[in-house]
Amino acid sequence: MDDTRMAQRPLIALAMGDPAGISPELAARLLVSKRVNEAARLVVIGDRRILNDGATAAGVIPELQSVSLSDVGLQTVTAHAFLDLGNLSPADVRKGEAALIGGRFAVENFRNALELGRDGKVDAVCFTPFNKKAMRLAYPGYDDEIRFIADVLQFRQKMREFNVLEQIWNARVTSHIPLSAVASHISEEAILAELDLTRTCLIQAGITEPKIAVAGLNPHAGDGGSFGMEEIDIIEPAVARAIDKGWQVEGPFPADTVFLTALKRGFHAVLTMYHDQGQIAMKMMGFDRGVTMLGGLPFPVCTPAHGTAYDIAGKGIANVGASEEAVLLAARMAAQGKAASARL
Amino acid sequence: MDDTRMAQRPLIALAMGDPAGISPELAARLLVSKRVNEAARLVVIGDRRILNDGATAAGVIPELQSVSLSDVGLQTVTAHAFLDLGNLSPADVRKGEAALIGGRFAVENFRNALELGRDGKVDAVCFTPFNKKAMRLAYPGYDDEIRFIADVLQFRQKMREFNVLEQIWNARVTSHIPLSAVASHISEEAILAELDLTRTCLIQAGITEPKIAVAGLNPHAGDGGSFGMEEIDIIEPAVARAIDKGWQVEGPFPADTVFLTALKRGFHAVLTMYHDQGQIAMKMMGFDRGVTMLGGLPFPVCTPAHGTAYDIAGKGIANVGASEEAVLLAARMAAQGKAASARL
Repeated sequence: MDDTRMAQRPLIALAMGDPAGISPELAARLLVSKRVNEAARLVVIGDRRILNDGATAAGVIPELQSVSLSDVGLQTVTAHAFLDLGNLSPADVRKGEAALIGGRFAVENFRNALELGRDGKVDAVCFTPFNKKAMRLAYPGYDDEIRFIADVLQFRQKMREFNVLEQIWNARVTSHIPLSAVASHISEEAILAELDLTRTCLIQAGITEPKIAVAGLNPHAGDGGSFGMEEIDIIEPAVARAIDKGWQVEGPFPADTVFLTALKRGFHAVLTMYHDQGQIAMKMMGFDRGVTMLGGLPFPVCTPAHGTAYDIAGKGIANVGASEEAVLLAARMAAQGKAASARL
Repeated sequence: MDDTRMAQRPLIALAMGDPAGISPELAARLLVSKRVNEAARLVVIGDRRILNDGATAAGVIPELQSVSLSDVGLQTVTAHAFLDLGNLSPADVRKGEAALIGGRFAVENFRNALELGRDGKVDAVCFTPFNKKAMRLAYPGYDDEIRFIADVLQFRQKMREFNVLEQIWNARVTSHIPLSAVASHISEEAILAELDLTRTCLIQAGITEPKIAVAGLNPHAGDGGSFGMEEIDIIEPAVARAIDKGWQVEGPFPADTVFLTALKRGFHAVLTMYHDQGQIAMKMMGFDRGVTMLGGLPFPVCTPAHGTAYDIAGKGIANVGASEEAVLLAARMAAQGKAASARL
């Protein structure tokens, strides 16, 4: 890679996540990853002492420039950099325990990263895993990342979580709601909106002609109306409208084989109707090695799909693979976005 | 194996399924299977000409005694036998097409097998795959095997479908109902009844101390009540009551990892709240190689989990593995039942 291309690598804010887990090690490992370095410049946000502890645990020595909040920008940061908020002393961290101070640290890092994204000072945002309990201690009303981002950025447009494995993406019409409320949230408009956003994100990720498989809602996709009418009344008409738009969409497929069908037939994504319909399959396929991508914002937000792994925190054995994939996906999407803007 | 033990092998009625699919080949292959022969005596029920066609396709030559309906019995049938109902000419079968005559054939074979089971003339019943469309043509109101059995035998007690892989079983609280109706069908009593039946069937299958994992209903098992209250209000109390009975039961576990947890921790079964919660995971684990067991009747009923495979019918390439497993499970359960009766 020549110097010009190196300087044009997307700039990604990496918010350090929960300090009681493997997040510090993951941040340190990302900074010495050759794959990451070739694809992106990172601005790690957190406390330098926490990062140093992570580097020690991981047995790596990251090279970093320092940067202040006001100096972060696409031109000023030419290599991996650290934005030191000085917001947590390692002495206060108890490994393996969800705590208020850990939540505050993660919340502040993530907030700053998001604001840099909003202000166009970075191309994308990534973060290492949060602990939900700690986040709730620090930020009452914390439901999930999407809700948090919407709050922090006062962002009112559609935003969605995608689960990304190398071979397939999963998008869903409903997510963190009771199962009893799922059916009433399924509508043609909701399905079309998800298909639209999924297509957009897949195209941003470099897939020019996205093929999307749509799951049914009921057992055996309703078996011709025997066990529920949503397939006939809602999902089939929505798929027909998508096809009319020229989108490559097919379904509804029975939920219990839709992923097997999609893998076999080369679909890029499966749109499921509810959380576990997709999550069960994705986790069976090893989604803990996958990436969660939040789409719909003006910039991509990616994170490894696995959690804080309190049980192995500080042991230096955490696998950085999913975190690398998160950064690489964010970089790919950011680069496509820049290329698209340049063409305008 | 000595002659006495051979003669004591359980006697299993094998109803020939849909003739337009791979059922005839599977029946023929079962009859020459060494594993099956060591574990059971089969009485195949159907038309001898259809079986002969299956044997030709499979390239095997089964050895069979003939038996009449009135002669079938534990003492009279000493080796694999054929009960020829003379109910279908191969000339009338169009491979790969669901048809009324195929449905009638399968319905009649299955009905006779079930009646032999009810009358204590066989120890268990197995069948090769049915085609649902053909079954409905032949038997209006055909919903699934459970409903059919209840109709035919006027059986009014609890009967349930279990999905069995070598490493794990799946039982469910609700099955072929719309997803919108699932939550209202979850109750402590329903969960306890399923746990009871699952334990009974596992014990019949030779697992003396069954360990059962119970899935939650909502995303993240409700996440402490954030996305639904059924875990707190219903499932947790049901699990507590099960534990009070001395049963090895644990949960609720989040649905998206309950199978991974169960495999890792050596549970024998997972009780899911609805159809796809279990089916998605089981099919990802290769359930098409598994067995469907209908429990609750006085005798076990088992069938391979896969379908009629119209696309490869008559080609002689159908894999008999799942059908063998079905017969072996039925034989094991029947043998346990006989041993238990002998101890009384």
